[in-house]
Amino acid sequence: MMKTSRSGFRVVLVRPRNPLNIGAAARALANFGLHELMVVAPHPPVWQETRSAVGAEEIVRAARAVGDLSEAIGDRTWVVGTTSGSRRNLDRELIPLNKPGVWLPKRARQGRVALLFGSEKTGLSNEEMSFCHALVRIPTTDECPSMNLGQAVAVCCYELAREGAIPTRPASAKIHHSDPANLQSIEHVFARAERVLGHTGYLKPKSRAATLIKLRRLLLDLELTNNDVKILGGILAQIEWKLQL
Amino acid sequence: MMKTSRSGFRVVLVRPRNPLNIGAAARALANFGLHELMVVAPHPPVWQETRSAVGAEEIVRAARAVGDLSEAIGDRTWVVGTTSGSRRNLDRELIPLNKPGVWLPKRARQGRVALLFGSEKTGLSNEEMSFCHALVRIPTTDECPSMNLGQAVAVCCYELAREGAIPTRPASAKIHHSDPANLQSIEHVFARAERVLGHTGYLKPKSRAATLIKLRRLLLDLELTNNDVKILGGILAQIEWKLQL
Repeated sequence: MMKTSRSGFRVVLVRPRNPLNIGAAARALANFGLHELMVVAPHPPVWQETRSAVGAEEIVRAARAVGDLSEAIGDRTWVVGTTSGSRRNLDRELIPLNKPGVWLPKRARQGRVALLFGSEKTGLSNEEMSFCHALVRIPTTDECPSMNLGQAVAVCCYELAREGAIPTRPASAKIHHSDPANLQSIEHVFARAERVLGHTGYLKPKSRAATLIKLRRLLLDLELTNNDVKILGGILAQIEWKLQL
Repeated sequence: MMKTSRSGFRVVLVRPRNPLNIGAAARALANFGLHELMVVAPHPPVWQETRSAVGAEEIVRAARAVGDLSEAIGDRTWVVGTTSGSRRNLDRELIPLNKPGVWLPKRARQGRVALLFGSEKTGLSNEEMSFCHALVRIPTTDECPSMNLGQAVAVCCYELAREGAIPTRPASAKIHHSDPANLQSIEHVFARAERVLGHTGYLKPKSRAATLIKLRRLLLDLELTNNDVKILGGILAQIEWKLQL
């Protein structure tokens, strides 16, 4: 049997539509030694109808529903999105689930990790994926690529437990300059950059959304530390001041 | 994406109680390139209420319900049972799911394999397990060992696909003497042995059931070929004749 020390790992269900899947996800977490479940923008009846699954009562009780994705990942330092890989317009590498050493590299395991699952119908949107440091593909067939949500969560939790890859909670919550920045502080930099780029005319109306998605991805790919974020924020503030924003 | 050539692999659900789980199991098969689902002794309403899951229509349509386990595995040459490992009276080694090379050795992959899942409440009984060449443990936590049936099927199918371990259908259905014997022919030997041992007083009323379970396991562990079965059957027939059975 596995050890079940508390981990720094959070599973996030984005806009789930079926309350049974929330309970099923909770049970999968409990089966494989994970504890933290968060649900983004469930339809209110979905959330109210969520019943505890056998053995997962504590997880369902502790699960939180939040209004949008940024609330669910703001304190995270590493975000992984899941996909069946059936959408064709992805311009990013999808890492097979069975390579957790790649989608959850060692340095990321020491931080606070979130694993995102999109809604049953549509999966994660391109914008939601832009918040992810890595995208994982569950190796399903071309004939039937899309998994049931509860089953997808179970398979991912199994893979984590299989490889002993479940991150342990960081020893201290103290913030170090050299630690990876969390999503919230990166989003602050992003918002400043958006303001500056908008003002300078870099963002064109037609391509604005796509450009911003690329910009966020670029920021995530830099794997900024808290110190980096501070410096970048200072630079942008200075530009804002000069531009009289 | 995986290749999806037809395999010699069958998933068998024993006495499932929830029709949703049958549909979910079918979908997991479709997700990972398996095709054959069989259900043993479902309550009739359970079977009637089974709805196709997305993408698994063909599998549900082709799925068969049979009356007892022997019908579901009679033509199999290798049978694997799944368990959470929470039952304490097991006297057999449970092989972790992530060692498919052990619970599904190379020689077994060339045959006709069945993977058994017990009912949601009780799992596989000791007698049902006695039909298995190998028992697989899904590495769940002590706190919440029991998985949802549909999720357990998904995790096992994932592991098979992960390792490229899904057996391909044997090239020819022709029976060779040196091929592994199927369960049905082993059961014929078993039935003969039971008759002989009963008649000679080897089977005591109190321990009869347990002794027979051990005997079946012993026969399976021998990994008999068709030729072995023929010879053993002949020996037992001769003893029966001598005992005037």
